[in-house]
Amino acid sequence: MTVSDRLNGDLPLRDADSVAADIAPDATVLTSGFGSVGYPKLVPLALAADDRDLALTLVSSGNVGDEIDVELVESGAIARRFTYQSSEVARAATNRRDIAFSDRNASSMGDDVQYRGVVDPDVCVVEAVAVGPDWFVPSTSLGQVPAFVEAADELVVEVNAAQPLELQALHDIYRPDAPPNRDPVPLTDPGERIGSTRVEFDPEKLTAVVESDRPDDTYTFRDPTEDDLAIAENLGDFLTRELERSPVFEDAIHLQFGVGSLGNALMGELKELDFGGRDVVYFGELIQDGLFDMLDEGRLEAASATSLALTTEGQERLFDDVERYAEDIVLRPADVSNHPGLIDQFGVVGVNSAIEFDIYGNVNSTHVNGSRMINGVGGSADFNRNSLVSVCALPSTIKDGEISRVVPMAFHVDHTEHDIDVFVTEQGVADVRGLSPVERAERIIENCAHPAFVDDLRDYLADVKTQDAHIPMDVERAANWQ
Amino acid sequence: MTVSDRLNGDLPLRDADSVAADIAPDATVLTSGFGSVGYPKLVPLALAADDRDLALTLVSSGNVGDEIDVELVESGAIARRFTYQSSEVARAATNRRDIAFSDRNASSMGDDVQYRGVVDPDVCVVEAVAVGPDWFVPSTSLGQVPAFVEAADELVVEVNAAQPLELQALHDIYRPDAPPNRDPVPLTDPGERIGSTRVEFDPEKLTAVVESDRPDDTYTFRDPTEDDLAIAENLGDFLTRELERSPVFEDAIHLQFGVGSLGNALMGELKELDFGGRDVVYFGELIQDGLFDMLDEGRLEAASATSLALTTEGQERLFDDVERYAEDIVLRPADVSNHPGLIDQFGVVGVNSAIEFDIYGNVNSTHVNGSRMINGVGGSADFNRNSLVSVCALPSTIKDGEISRVVPMAFHVDHTEHDIDVFVTEQGVADVRGLSPVERAERIIENCAHPAFVDDLRDYLADVKTQDAHIPMDVERAANWQ
Repeated sequence: MTVSDRLNGDLPLRDADSVAADIAPDATVLTSGFGSVGYPKLVPLALAADDRDLALTLVSSGNVGDEIDVELVESGAIARRFTYQSSEVARAATNRRDIAFSDRNASSMGDDVQYRGVVDPDVCVVEAVAVGPDWFVPSTSLGQVPAFVEAADELVVEVNAAQPLELQALHDIYRPDAPPNRDPVPLTDPGERIGSTRVEFDPEKLTAVVESDRPDDTYTFRDPTEDDLAIAENLGDFLTRELERSPVFEDAIHLQFGVGSLGNALMGELKELDFGGRDVVYFGELIQDGLFDMLDEGRLEAASATSLALTTEGQERLFDDVERYAEDIVLRPADVSNHPGLIDQFGVVGVNSAIEFDIYGNVNSTHVNGSRMINGVGGSADFNRNSLVSVCALPSTIKDGEISRVVPMAFHVDHTEHDIDVFVTEQGVADVRGLSPVERAERIIENCAHPAFVDDLRDYLADVKTQDAHIPMDVERAANWQ
Repeated sequence: MTVSDRLNGDLPLRDADSVAADIAPDATVLTSGFGSVGYPKLVPLALAADDRDLALTLVSSGNVGDEIDVELVESGAIARRFTYQSSEVARAATNRRDIAFSDRNASSMGDDVQYRGVVDPDVCVVEAVAVGPDWFVPSTSLGQVPAFVEAADELVVEVNAAQPLELQALHDIYRPDAPPNRDPVPLTDPGERIGSTRVEFDPEKLTAVVESDRPDDTYTFRDPTEDDLAIAENLGDFLTRELERSPVFEDAIHLQFGVGSLGNALMGELKELDFGGRDVVYFGELIQDGLFDMLDEGRLEAASATSLALTTEGQERLFDDVERYAEDIVLRPADVSNHPGLIDQFGVVGVNSAIEFDIYGNVNSTHVNGSRMINGVGGSADFNRNSLVSVCALPSTIKDGEISRVVPMAFHVDHTEHDIDVFVTEQGVADVRGLSPVERAERIIENCAHPAFVDDLRDYLADVKTQDAHIPMDVERAANWQ
């Protein structure tokens, strides 16, 4: 199939340079892209090469690739950035505050742009696998594309021949109507389809179609470490006990896993678990390679997400048999995949990682030492807050064991002490449901902290416990703890 | 009407002392009560007078009155407590850690008890205005009563003749079914009714009906202060601009206000605003006195909440004409009134107070100095996270201006930097939507801080801004700031 098979009807075909030249130097540009895939590539590269003095506001609803968060950032063209980013270059620019970065939960960025007035959108640039005068088929991620297309004045579509047209079999595009008095999202099962495979738009908006064959900047995962495997085993033990405990899981369990090498390893280890004949369903934001074995074995009933955050091998595995996988995989916009009400409705067991958590259960997933940004918050808060059981899973240390990820006090809090039910490290499981803050601290230290740090944490807790306080703390000592 | 008119059919009538004596010393007791009203009174008082060595787990989904959070706490009978409390006595016991207090968002406590395994419920004690062998009509609040009744092994109903039977006209009792694959809550309008006026239960559960005529421990509000009125005016200015800005509010605006004297004053000042013919609807957790004038003038289309958090005068005003008010007021269980998906669906503008907020937009609503509990988090996080526009409104200082509520760093975070859109104090409005953390800090300091503290906050920010960090901070200086 050639690019021309992707073009339907009378379309404003243009090259990326001329499209970029028409974008105002201070424009607000909304892009597709989530989980580092499905983002536009040629227009951002053309903007990076543009010799005007650009000060763009760039809005993506999830992670994008190097064409945007390395090339375009390095060119100095981005003055303001929403919402998720994680490249080293973007991180450095954000910490220098050369880029004004505003971070929101993945579920809310569509409404932010369309209704909340956080930006005044000019042009939306999306990647597609096919386009017509008033529709396109998105590629490997959806994110907040339907909301972005509705909100922007103009639309530019990059049609990418490197992405298989069959991707459209995966899409279920549904955008909730405008508040107030929106109808409830009519989804009653994570695998159900309630929308269409195309994004439709006002044809007046379409100012350019750009032909592309540049592949996604796919994921690379490290092989699972010993810690990863120990975490997976501890998580498996917890899940097994939870399945026995709770009648909610009598017939089915709905799972979500955060992105990254650990998340991918945890997904991969799922196949070792005995679910006792229960339906296992994935309702998350990202499909990672780790899910394919379970899909292939028919042990995963359905997988709902907003992005295919795959390695090159994972993409090949999917694309070689996309029609078959489409029977079980549904890609949704992020305002549906991460919808607080749906996460609650489906009683999700959500498993997400973080940078660190403190003894009282506060979680920092974005800023080292509370101040230096590592990545955006993404969808972790959507799942941590709204899951029936929210699990925070991560290794107990970092930097070859030199630094504890279990700390006396988190100085940046993305998920509060009210949010997380269970903490898992390679050391063990701290189920803190129903515990007071000090009880939580005792269980977290004893079950999750690395032995090299347990004594220091115990000493800290013993000393602050002399205070007459519900959540005793010594801020200065906590700040100097490591 | 006498108590006997409230009793329908063959009921296990008993006195409170004998009911209390049958409750095991280490029982888990779930109670009705939210917004300090509609809680059981006689059984808690009998438990307080019980001379056994009690170590109860007591679970209410919202605030209850002195019979529980003063009398029963002072008796030493409570070992563990969920979820909201705010009496001075309960606060002191919690800060001494004589009571293990576990705090969750108001929307989730029903699922916590019924599905999440945070407690193993023994008996549920509720206040009602009428009871039959397999149903009762709750009194002045609903909270998580339907979930609590389903979760507990036994049920005790206090039938209170001091509460008008006509209250049933207000109730709309709907409990979402069990996860996973719950149906969406079928509410399409805040004023709609989707359930029944009674809570139904398995008749085998009903172990006792206790007759009562003890009135609620109603609210007392101070008269609005100058600060309250200035905050109301600033909020009004913001709302007027927002109505002009956003097409979402073309036909209607859905509002929520937090509890307390400030919240009541803000509700009362609503009637001064020109809504330009738009439908004004209240979708919150508490009905306070301040709403009645708007209801009486026909300027409030509907008011949905889970509790009538009224003064004695407010109760009289309501009860004197409850049939008429029931045309516009709907009381719902807290898992519906505070449902994350519904708050999103209705595009609520939520206005909540707090103890303090920091320059980066983190909000502390529960713990003074990060460590001493003042009150539970209640439903504030439900609305702060899920509202279309979330407003944090409070005076810029406390203790006669000696302490700033705008601080460099909040050492307990209930609502994160990702959650709040707009801050309002008597000094002004900081609309921080779309701003980076340092931009937020500048706007919050300039627009919201009290003049007596502005220079110190400016100095702090100027000094930390020399750091190469997205969210620059000096933890020790922040800890010693006041």
